Amino acid sequence: MRNAILFVHCPDRSGLVAAVSSWIGANGGNIEHFEQHVDEETSTFFMRAEWSLEAFRIADEDIEDRFRREVGDAFAMNARVHVDGGRPRIAIFVSTLSHCLTDLLARAESGELAVDVPLVVSNHESLREVSERHGVAFEHVPVTAENKARAEEHQQSLLDAHGVELVVLARYMQILSADFLVAWQERVINIHHSFLPAFAGARPYHRAHARGVKIIGATSHYATEDLDEGPIIAQGVATVSHRDAVSDLVRKGRDVERVVLAEAVRAHTERRVLVHHGRTVVFGS
Amino acid sequence: MRNAILFVHCPDRSGLVAAVSSWIGANGGNIEHFEQHVDEETSTFFMRAEWSLEAFRIADEDIEDRFRREVGDAFAMNARVHVDGGRPRIAIFVSTLSHCLTDLLARAESGELAVDVPLVVSNHESLREVSERHGVAFEHVPVTAENKARAEEHQQSLLDAHGVELVVLARYMQILSADFLVAWQERVINIHHSFLPAFAGARPYHRAHARGVKIIGATSHYATEDLDEGPIIAQGVATVSHRDAVSDLVRKGRDVERVVLAEAVRAHTERRVLVHHGRTVVFGS
Amino acid sequence: MRNAILFVHCPDRSGLVAAVSSWIGANGGNIEHFEQHVDEETSTFFMRAEWSLEAFRIADEDIEDRFRREVGDAFAMNARVHVDGGRPRIAIFVSTLSHCLTDLLARAESGELAVDVPLVVSNHESLREVSERHGVAFEHVPVTAENKARAEEHQQSLLDAHGVELVVLARYMQILSADFLVAWQERVINIHHSFLPAFAGARPYHRAHARGVKIIGATSHYATEDLDEGPIIAQGVATVSHRDAVSDLVRKGRDVERVVLAEAVRAHTERRVLVHHGRTVVFGS
Amino acid sequence: MRNAILFVHCPDRSGLVAAVSSWIGANGGNIEHFEQHVDEETSTFFMRAEWSLEAFRIADEDIEDRFRREVGDAFAMNARVHVDGGRPRIAIFVSTLSHCLTDLLARAESGELAVDVPLVVSNHESLREVSERHGVAFEHVPVTAENKARAEEHQQSLLDAHGVELVVLARYMQILSADFLVAWQERVINIHHSFLPAFAGARPYHRAHARGVKIIGATSHYATEDLDEGPIIAQGVATVSHRDAVSDLVRKGRDVERVVLAEAVRAHTERRVLVHHGRTVVFGS
Repeated sequence: MRNAILFVHCPDRSGLVAAVSSWIGANGGNIEHFEQHVDEETSTFFMRAEWSLEAFRIADEDIEDRFRREVGDAFAMNARVHVDGGRPRIAIFVSTLSHCLTDLLARAESGELAVDVPLVVSNHESLREVSERHGVAFEHVPVTAENKARAEEHQQSLLDAHGVELVVLARYMQILSADFLVAWQERVINIHHSFLPAFAGARPYHRAHARGVKIIGATSHYATEDLDEGPIIAQGVATVSHRDAVSDLVRKGRDVERVVLAEAVRAHTERRVLVHHGRTVVFGS
Repeated sequence: MRNAILFVHCPDRSGLVAAVSSWIGANGGNIEHFEQHVDEETSTFFMRAEWSLEAFRIADEDIEDRFRREVGDAFAMNARVHVDGGRPRIAIFVSTLSHCLTDLLARAESGELAVDVPLVVSNHESLREVSERHGVAFEHVPVTAENKARAEEHQQSLLDAHGVELVVLARYMQILSADFLVAWQERVINIHHSFLPAFAGARPYHRAHARGVKIIGATSHYATEDLDEGPIIAQGVATVSHRDAVSDLVRKGRDVERVVLAEAVRAHTERRVLVHHGRTVVFGS
Repeated sequence: MRNAILFVHCPDRSGLVAAVSSWIGANGGNIEHFEQHVDEETSTFFMRAEWSLEAFRIADEDIEDRFRREVGDAFAMNARVHVDGGRPRIAIFVSTLSHCLTDLLARAESGELAVDVPLVVSNHESLREVSERHGVAFEHVPVTAENKARAEEHQQSLLDAHGVELVVLARYMQILSADFLVAWQERVINIHHSFLPAFAGARPYHRAHARGVKIIGATSHYATEDLDEGPIIAQGVATVSHRDAVSDLVRKGRDVERVVLAEAVRAHTERRVLVHHGRTVVFGS
Repeated sequence: MRNAILFVHCPDRSGLVAAVSSWIGANGGNIEHFEQHVDEETSTFFMRAEWSLEAFRIADEDIEDRFRREVGDAFAMNARVHVDGGRPRIAIFVSTLSHCLTDLLARAESGELAVDVPLVVSNHESLREVSERHGVAFEHVPVTAENKARAEEHQQSLLDAHGVELVVLARYMQILSADFLVAWQERVINIHHSFLPAFAGARPYHRAHARGVKIIGATSHYATEDLDEGPIIAQGVATVSHRDAVSDLVRKGRDVERVVLAEAVRAHTERRVLVHHGRTVVFGS
């Protein structure tokens, strides 16, 4: 049961839905999900269509090109096609905090997340056992100011060797270089332990406590060169009060981080996220 | 800027999106919103399309019939067309509690809800001033076990006289007859002060307190003959604790009731609600 | 049924609860509410005690002084006593947006908020009718860069004339001077239409939309000289998605603003808020 | 740093706070947490005091008795004392679903929950590996209608052998006997996958979907003979829509279940829960 997924964005105009859906149908595709959205401020049309390839008459590798020539170009569409083939392979980068790692591994193992996790990368040794007992390769890649470029080369070769298509920064406390992030654009998801843009940067729970906020949050986003500024995929919040010490904020925040990061990984690996002008369209949400 | 809105539900099959969108486009309609949803348990296709009538070549009164003959019947579609004409006119039924009434009147007055409220009906006199100072006609229709049928006739004639198309029960403490509700099917919205189906029936806040729940809620739904069983349009919740007395539940619940009722009225009057097998599809939510 | 309310904060040490509660009891007070909290980071003790004055043997005006001499000074307590006398009188400052104003007036009228609202002040004329039909005096005080000092003198004299003890800025779009705010310290509550500290300053909904956040919020806080930096009393949030235009954020935000502002006014007027180092302790929450 | 925790409930009257806090202080205790609450409907006083035993002059085993004789009896107090000694030992009962089990094991391992988990009991074999790789003993105790009494004897002996003081039913699909539950009164915590009292009983997510609710939830409660009727400790909710199939409700519900169950275990093991008339007082929440 293989499916094709088509993302489109273009200037809004008449006939877009009909043009796309007719082309899919004319080529033997049965649409299973169809969602469109018009951003009224910019008159931009966004669309996601998913159809079964069972009786589709175009070869996988030709779909995107044929669509562009036969439909997209006439409407100035920016079009991208995914063919859903098996479970996405993700690598998890961690430092010393285990809660997001163990959560993702448990979700992958139970089938709650339809992904394979072949690789955990860390700049510390401490989460080796947690990873290996799930049968996941654990690679310790120490990172210092001096060796950073070489460390990233090593990380890249590990990602290649394990056939990874998505990197999840599960409270990884190192900053990836601009080069790495450009190479992995829209394929690195980070969890930030604050309700961005509030408390961007370091020690957000301490600063949230000092400021006396009554709600804290967490934010999952694509990592970009501009730290904590990448397109937001999911956010969550928890209520706090004056009774909560920083340690309580940390604890409550962990529950939010886990859920929000898993939600982002799920949306990405189900091919439901489109990025445009620094913002996400998360179809089906 | 008049729009047509088409609701469809039918057995799911290939070609539905293309068939509908092509027909709209071929007749000069520019689709502004298009949303489809397939219920996988029952393989039922649900759809809502909204398009501008500016250049549409079919007269308003013919759209539904033409669509059925030219598209719908071939796919066994259940199809319904609304032509959006001006602000819906709603009547608010109340007893003695003012919070939902004042909230709806304020939203209508400020334009937050795009509706007209020509009429308030109550089985008590106490909210006359609140209504009249908004320039809304207030009609006192006492209801007793004996006069119920006559009271409903009177209510019906008031609704007719004011050209009302939607009745909102804003904590109206009388039960409408099955006859009335059948005549006004899917056109009477009630707010129940509990998180249905929990605490259906009377005094839900007292029972929630006695049971020691940690979250309370409110539910807006279409009123049906089966009390508190109608299709749910919107629900909301609030956190409570052992510190909250029944009076605190009542107070916190009011904030939920106001928001949830307004949300339901907005969804209905924006023609975004489709009812099927006792459940709602609320498009655009 | 008059009550006394005692707020205490001081360095934490042994015997504080016993010292306070014994003194109240020894003077004939029956404690109805007692709440303490220790901030572990700074070892600061916070306390609120409320007791019935029915059989209390100290005259109202002497309570604070007697408590300090007999208990507080020995423990280096910062102590403050309120004697609850009737309904607090509040003034509402507005500009042109009505939603918080109508909400507060409705809550006061229905008794949901136990306050009197004798006065609405605005730098525009547009909300006169809304105010006056509730029997509330409406005073139009235009504010310009030139007349600001005189305008504030006028506002101050209006507050004096109406015996106001709390000013609520219900989307009032003028900045009050440092002098005014110092004179009214911890007696001016503002509602900011963002989840502070995110999007402090102007046009928060536009900026939240541009940033692509998935949750928006509102914040009620004591107004201080440092704009949008005052102690936070209450916050609330609402979920948004890519489907929401700026106008949807504005609409959803209004529901949060109303509830959050009313919650702050209630907490303040029930004498449950203590401010310490720019943060609030909101007892009973 | 050992602490004593005292729970009190009794008819409300004057002098209770002073009596308790003075007694603690007079015996050398330094109160670290003190919380009282009066249920106004029944005029019942609830209290929790926690103090350091460092300089306390009464032996652990005498505290409760001495308090009763010297303070409690004079006020008709129902009093109970815990002396906090090390990490509580809990057993987790499961069937085949892993998500609550893996979550609790990860929290215990990371220190997020200050408990020891020496034992997992299951009526199936499938979660053996998950348990054993955390170094936790896994005991397979099959349960049938015929062997139920013997199975419970076996379970009891396992609990004894491992020094367990709290049993957590982490989606355990067997009903424990009244005898077992009476013996373990207020020491068995269950997670029910609905927002009780809605959808008590079996298959709540299916029934929630059929009813078309817009919010689902989960409930942790002490297990009692009356199925799904035990005192509620914590509840949580998640928003759903018509787009969510039953499988989506199950998935979203799991996130709520995990958090709500962990919250209840934490509240119980921190000695913050008092049960009275079928309801809980959860201090510090």
